[in-house]
Amino acid sequence: MKTLKVALLGCGNVGSQVARILLDDAEDLASRTGARLELTGIAVRNPDAPRDTDLPRNLFTTDAEKLVEGADIVIELMGGMEPARTLMLHAIGHGASVVTGNKALLAADGATLFEKADAAGVRLAYEAAVAGAIPILRPIRDSLSGDRITKVMGIVNGTTNYILDAMDSTGAQFADALADAQRLGYAEADPTADVEGHDAASKGAILASLAFHTNFDLANVSCEGISSVTADDIAAAKDAGFVIKLLAIAEKLDNDGEPGVSVRVHPTLLPRTHPLAAVHGAFNAVFVEAENAGELMFYGQGAGGAPTASAVMGDVVSTARRLVLGGPLGAETPTGSVPALPFAKVTTSYSIGLQVTDQPGVLAAVAQVFAEHGVSIETMRQTIHADGTASSAELRFVTHRASEAALAATVEAIKGLDIINSVTSVLRVEGV
Amino acid sequence: MKTLKVALLGCGNVGSQVARILLDDAEDLASRTGARLELTGIAVRNPDAPRDTDLPRNLFTTDAEKLVEGADIVIELMGGMEPARTLMLHAIGHGASVVTGNKALLAADGATLFEKADAAGVRLAYEAAVAGAIPILRPIRDSLSGDRITKVMGIVNGTTNYILDAMDSTGAQFADALADAQRLGYAEADPTADVEGHDAASKGAILASLAFHTNFDLANVSCEGISSVTADDIAAAKDAGFVIKLLAIAEKLDNDGEPGVSVRVHPTLLPRTHPLAAVHGAFNAVFVEAENAGELMFYGQGAGGAPTASAVMGDVVSTARRLVLGGPLGAETPTGSVPALPFAKVTTSYSIGLQVTDQPGVLAAVAQVFAEHGVSIETMRQTIHADGTASSAELRFVTHRASEAALAATVEAIKGLDIINSVTSVLRVEGV
Repeated sequence: MKTLKVALLGCGNVGSQVARILLDDAEDLASRTGARLELTGIAVRNPDAPRDTDLPRNLFTTDAEKLVEGADIVIELMGGMEPARTLMLHAIGHGASVVTGNKALLAADGATLFEKADAAGVRLAYEAAVAGAIPILRPIRDSLSGDRITKVMGIVNGTTNYILDAMDSTGAQFADALADAQRLGYAEADPTADVEGHDAASKGAILASLAFHTNFDLANVSCEGISSVTADDIAAAKDAGFVIKLLAIAEKLDNDGEPGVSVRVHPTLLPRTHPLAAVHGAFNAVFVEAENAGELMFYGQGAGGAPTASAVMGDVVSTARRLVLGGPLGAETPTGSVPALPFAKVTTSYSIGLQVTDQPGVLAAVAQVFAEHGVSIETMRQTIHADGTASSAELRFVTHRASEAALAATVEAIKGLDIINSVTSVLRVEGV
Repeated sequence: MKTLKVALLGCGNVGSQVARILLDDAEDLASRTGARLELTGIAVRNPDAPRDTDLPRNLFTTDAEKLVEGADIVIELMGGMEPARTLMLHAIGHGASVVTGNKALLAADGATLFEKADAAGVRLAYEAAVAGAIPILRPIRDSLSGDRITKVMGIVNGTTNYILDAMDSTGAQFADALADAQRLGYAEADPTADVEGHDAASKGAILASLAFHTNFDLANVSCEGISSVTADDIAAAKDAGFVIKLLAIAEKLDNDGEPGVSVRVHPTLLPRTHPLAAVHGAFNAVFVEAENAGELMFYGQGAGGAPTASAVMGDVVSTARRLVLGGPLGAETPTGSVPALPFAKVTTSYSIGLQVTDQPGVLAAVAQVFAEHGVSIETMRQTIHADGTASSAELRFVTHRASEAALAATVEAIKGLDIINSVTSVLRVEGV
């Protein structure tokens, strides 16, 4: 039986689980791949740092460069830009296939890596980079290869889904829900990358690239996080039959005959009957619309050591099988070239909350602004708060679909009205 | 550019959509596969029968045997055992790869077909055979190849899910919900194969084979349909926070150190918070539990011409790519051999409904029977119906997990008690 040398870069949460599986399940893996997978070493900064699992001390090395040079398969789980990028290129240059979970690097510079892997005839696999354990890359790339995807909407960040789900079920404010999530380990001490949507944006770029066979990077993604979502927003949404989710959306638009793809991340109102609305806690899900298949959804754990290690090992086994059986590797560079559309070109629907003084003519004045911008109103709800002397009211509008540019201009114009106390919330609506 | 000859057997609901895609999307398919996919003919019984789509008359032939002889890829969408089986073997014998959606044939005699395809070095692909458009075979076989699946639970029959969902939302009786489903085209005039669970049983055998790398056939599947599920069952389940779904379940059990796989189809109580509970109407979903990945779910349309055609075309494109790029084909015959366990060996939990005369000592007598069989009770709910003279009561028990044999014996013993008017329902519970 052939032996394949496997080098592991990084031994954190995911890496240590991958090492455990490679060592504990060696026999099973050999029978599934037809080759012995030999873990030749684990490159880390500090071999003596404490680890989750008990791994043989002699596997650890600080010389990552030398480790990858002798490998058939390099598993990169260090994260971040450097030295991950240089080491992956070094591995590719030495003829190794690479399995990675590095979404930030792929979203920033995937094009270069894919091109190099393709030129070298090695595989670059990255199932773990989007939605952790959920098999999404292979279904999109292979199973739907005879269909045409029109839209992808993903809950791809567990931290923000956990926070929004807690706000929805307990009525908590964002700050309190975040603090709870931090206490329970669902959010990091510095939660910026999660709550501001940057992590979701990286995954959105990768999903868009896969779905539309074109390289999109982080610069093509419009991004808005959840830190301004209030308990009032959630309550009002709930009242109207919606739930608020942070979605990464990649959508093909006709754009007046010049088709393009919009990639964006923003808090979104979804009908509570939508399949994505049933995704609770830190779970992830990716909802796909295709011309023939219709609606599909893939659901599972988006993070965590063992779940993400499962995705990594799926790529390792499939790469090893190919190395054993022969046949072409390669990274499958994108075949298409659909341009990325700026957000202003996107057609969407808004939910707008306004605080107004309850006096005659307010609704007429606001409605007039909508009409002037060619935006039509789907529903309006008014809630009146009387406080003894004057009374104020809250108005919540949901619009029909209109261009993002027209909607943004409408909101600006409403803000300029004297009779408006404040625009309390602007959220986009999908799934209706 | 290379040309691959594609022969289509059958031109019904799915076949006509596949033909449409092959003809209309020829350019796209060529750029995705690197080969021109030439539809060389469509074998049908009657070339002049009316079709859903407008297809060139000269493509039709009644000589299926001759058609497959010249093909690189044969798409079998005739359904049924014969002549589908003979034609597939004929195609394999002539070196063609086969794409099929024929779940009944695969469940009955998949082992022979896989073996022949493997020996001939051709591919046998069947994504469309389970859960229509939902990519499930590739994720289970490839993406989870570095993990170990422990359990699969699928809503794999749209007709029964439509009926149960309607009963749950409207309170209708089974017969009325079935009649509605027939009127709307969700159920056939003879609904036996669907409502008695036979269709789900075929898919269960295929799912089990995939998940546990062993050939299971229809004879290994215990099967119970939904025709005895009543509006009362659904109402009582709803009351207790459950929904009733027809599930195909494949589960690996320790079985006192001699591991085996249970494959079964039966109506099942699921907590309303379970991801499968949110699968409405005629949609399908497959829920997977794996050692490292944890819980995964795949959701989408389980039937229909275009959705199923999407799955067929995914297989066609991936087979064509492989034929263009080179490398091994083959059907990936199962590598393992876990025995199928008889239903009596399965550990499960029961929901039991009893109609009793409301008199002292009834509960004690029933509880005694449970205790004698070593079955412990998780919850009990009592509803009293007074009708003027005497009063009767309904008792609903949910048990802890126990062996199917012990549970069945308990139910038999309860039936023998004088104080019991009738056992109104026996349903299994999962997901708790």
